[in-house]
Amino acid sequence: MSLEEKNIFHLRDIIYDTNEVTLANIFEEYFEIKDILFMFKVIKKEKTAEIFAYLPQNMKQQVINGLQDHEIKVMLDYMFTDDISEFLEELPANIVKRVLNSASNQRRSEINMILNFKENSAGSVMSTDYVELDPEITADEALKMIKDKERLAETISYCYITNEQHILLGFVSMKSILLASSNTMISDIMETDVISVECDEDQEEVAKIFTKYDLLVLPVVNDQHRLMGIITIDDVYDIIQEEVTEDLQKMVGITPIEGSYINMSIVEMVKSRITWLLILMISATVSGFILAKNTDLTLKFPSLVIFIPMLMDTAGNAGSQSSAMVVRGIAVDNLNISDFKYVIRTEFLNSLILGAILFTVNILRILIFMPQISISIAILISATIYIIITIANLIGGILPLLASTLKQDPASMSGPILTTVCDAISLTVYFTLASLFLGGGIYGI
Amino acid sequence: MSLEEKNIFHLRDIIYDTNEVTLANIFEEYFEIKDILFMFKVIKKEKTAEIFAYLPQNMKQQVINGLQDHEIKVMLDYMFTDDISEFLEELPANIVKRVLNSASNQRRSEINMILNFKENSAGSVMSTDYVELDPEITADEALKMIKDKERLAETISYCYITNEQHILLGFVSMKSILLASSNTMISDIMETDVISVECDEDQEEVAKIFTKYDLLVLPVVNDQHRLMGIITIDDVYDIIQEEVTEDLQKMVGITPIEGSYINMSIVEMVKSRITWLLILMISATVSGFILAKNTDLTLKFPSLVIFIPMLMDTAGNAGSQSSAMVVRGIAVDNLNISDFKYVIRTEFLNSLILGAILFTVNILRILIFMPQISISIAILISATIYIIITIANLIGGILPLLASTLKQDPASMSGPILTTVCDAISLTVYFTLASLFLGGGIYGI
Repeated sequence: MSLEEKNIFHLRDIIYDTNEVTLANIFEEYFEIKDILFMFKVIKKEKTAEIFAYLPQNMKQQVINGLQDHEIKVMLDYMFTDDISEFLEELPANIVKRVLNSASNQRRSEINMILNFKENSAGSVMSTDYVELDPEITADEALKMIKDKERLAETISYCYITNEQHILLGFVSMKSILLASSNTMISDIMETDVISVECDEDQEEVAKIFTKYDLLVLPVVNDQHRLMGIITIDDVYDIIQEEVTEDLQKMVGITPIEGSYINMSIVEMVKSRITWLLILMISATVSGFILAKNTDLTLKFPSLVIFIPMLMDTAGNAGSQSSAMVVRGIAVDNLNISDFKYVIRTEFLNSLILGAILFTVNILRILIFMPQISISIAILISATIYIIITIANLIGGILPLLASTLKQDPASMSGPILTTVCDAISLTVYFTLASLFLGGGIYGI
Repeated sequence: MSLEEKNIFHLRDIIYDTNEVTLANIFEEYFEIKDILFMFKVIKKEKTAEIFAYLPQNMKQQVINGLQDHEIKVMLDYMFTDDISEFLEELPANIVKRVLNSASNQRRSEINMILNFKENSAGSVMSTDYVELDPEITADEALKMIKDKERLAETISYCYITNEQHILLGFVSMKSILLASSNTMISDIMETDVISVECDEDQEEVAKIFTKYDLLVLPVVNDQHRLMGIITIDDVYDIIQEEVTEDLQKMVGITPIEGSYINMSIVEMVKSRITWLLILMISATVSGFILAKNTDLTLKFPSLVIFIPMLMDTAGNAGSQSSAMVVRGIAVDNLNISDFKYVIRTEFLNSLILGAILFTVNILRILIFMPQISISIAILISATIYIIITIANLIGGILPLLASTLKQDPASMSGPILTTVCDAISLTVYFTLASLFLGGGIYGI
């Protein structure tokens, strides 16, 4: 299909009336690169830049390859610096160089600054496209300035007030500028209690600050409190998504990795998975030793073996439930080590009731459906469940608290490590009780 | 401490210069209710409403009890409807009634409307405090209207254009209003490709739309496309947090529950946990049956028992890793059933390499550290690992895809159910191989 044959004017109207995300999806799905390049030549540069920002990374690279230097320059002028740096981060060095060379001097130095910040730091995700105002101008002058520089501002909802050294003094919302009478000085309506972060702050902390203060924009400053950029709430979404992925990965023993299922190579996947699989395989040997030590008992009472998977799983499940609840409590309620007693008490009370229910159901189930199992073994199994549920709940509740106190991610304590620990404990309790109950040989089976 | 004795004027200045979230935290930590009520009487109503919105629920209730009807009315006038409905939802009916009776007629009917929408629907989390403009006015008239009604608008960054029947026609950003020349008609600068949701849309879908289109505000319409309210991005945070909690709960077999670790009763916790603990305890019986059926084999070769926990855990861990990766792939890459082959291929290739590594390490470890185990058992164990890793990866990859195809939550397929399935499969493979390898008695141990 050649787009040139279509009615360009009609197509343009449709494009200007359509959301850029939808357009990027259509381009991705139905257009070839040469058609996209053609469209990019005939539609407004502003719209071009918007659509480009939502194309997938590989198409962005192809589009860049097909554009001339001056076309790249114009597009960069219409893009926000955070979008530019995000897409440059994953390009081959030679293309990055070409893009930067095409940029205007100011744009180039801004992008270079952002690219040079540590990965996942506030500086690396910020945008330099903010409105900066002098405190000694009037509301009317401010409005005029905003109108004049609008093209590049990512948001005009909040403007930042700085002195001549660009030190951040405060902020003013568009609402207050509009509401103020024309001659009001900005310094009279600005708010000075401005929440900001330093450039090297971790992005996870940035997301927390956004949530805590219900922010839409967060200014980023250097160590002299000089305004360097802003982070807008739409970027925080991506941060939250990354953090959720990372938490989930830690919970199942995947070494946190960039990239997603579709764009990761098999080797990268294997690398991210093998460490914990090996560690856990080796540490499961502990459970093996416990079993080996009790071979005499299992040979004498073979039915003991039958219940091993159920006991291990039940303890593991209970422990995971507790740890998941405490992990979310840490995230949502700011649970911390000072709540240690509360957690112990809660998990203990939970265990009392859960244990009693599981004890009863298990006894009944064995008596009714497994007539070959003696009542003494049934009691032994059920008592073991009661005890290991209690221990698993306590460990599951405490481990994430300890992890967070030691500045580790609580989620990393709620996955396979917990299962491995619960396994070993379950077996120890099981065989200790078994030798007490059955060891003397006073009960038959 | 009596606040009356302090210098009120000085205190007021500090309060006006301090962020409302910080103030709410200070009030919560250090103030008694009578001091808060006193403060609320002497500071600006606007600030009062802002601080109130960030107090914890139990303090909100006490403050309401201490305020007079006309004071409640004024505070409601300065609060956004979504904040009001959120806090009313958890109050006892008699207090809700009192608050609603104190409200102005319009406010009352708006709040009642929001409260009547289904829980977790777009209508139940929206705010009615938006700017609505006529298409047939000029940019200047629009600015004037916005200034006049500003007090109640949650955002002025986007204004919504409706006809006389309040049917949503489009939107216009504050940027374009400011940039337009004074006499430009709103209909000429408004954008008509407006993304909206219907009132009964689920909040999870709302969060997805926000992410997909990078929105800051989303209008909510009824089935006649009449504008009913807006949802702002700060509320979407809470939605995302709720959804993350729910996913995590499903992954560990907790029936999704409202409320958090701190404010949930023990009985509620037990209720949310017991169902899955029981289901999983009972279904672990399958593993028990497999073991029971192979008692002859384990009596003949007791060392087979030693490796059971390690095999079950390794398969479970590998399965969880795969399912976690696919669950995130579904969330981030929109992986779906059409990627079935891709997932199968990826998991198979992963298994080839992971299996080979685990096979080798396991053989070496047994030969070096467990001299009492024969080489034939070492090979049996390692071969079992290779096979069950492959099966676990495939199941872990496929289950979430199937769940999402059946409109179930993929996360619910990556937790204990998966472990239970992997357990049974591991044991079946293990004993099948064992009888093939050892059953004929041609290898000694």
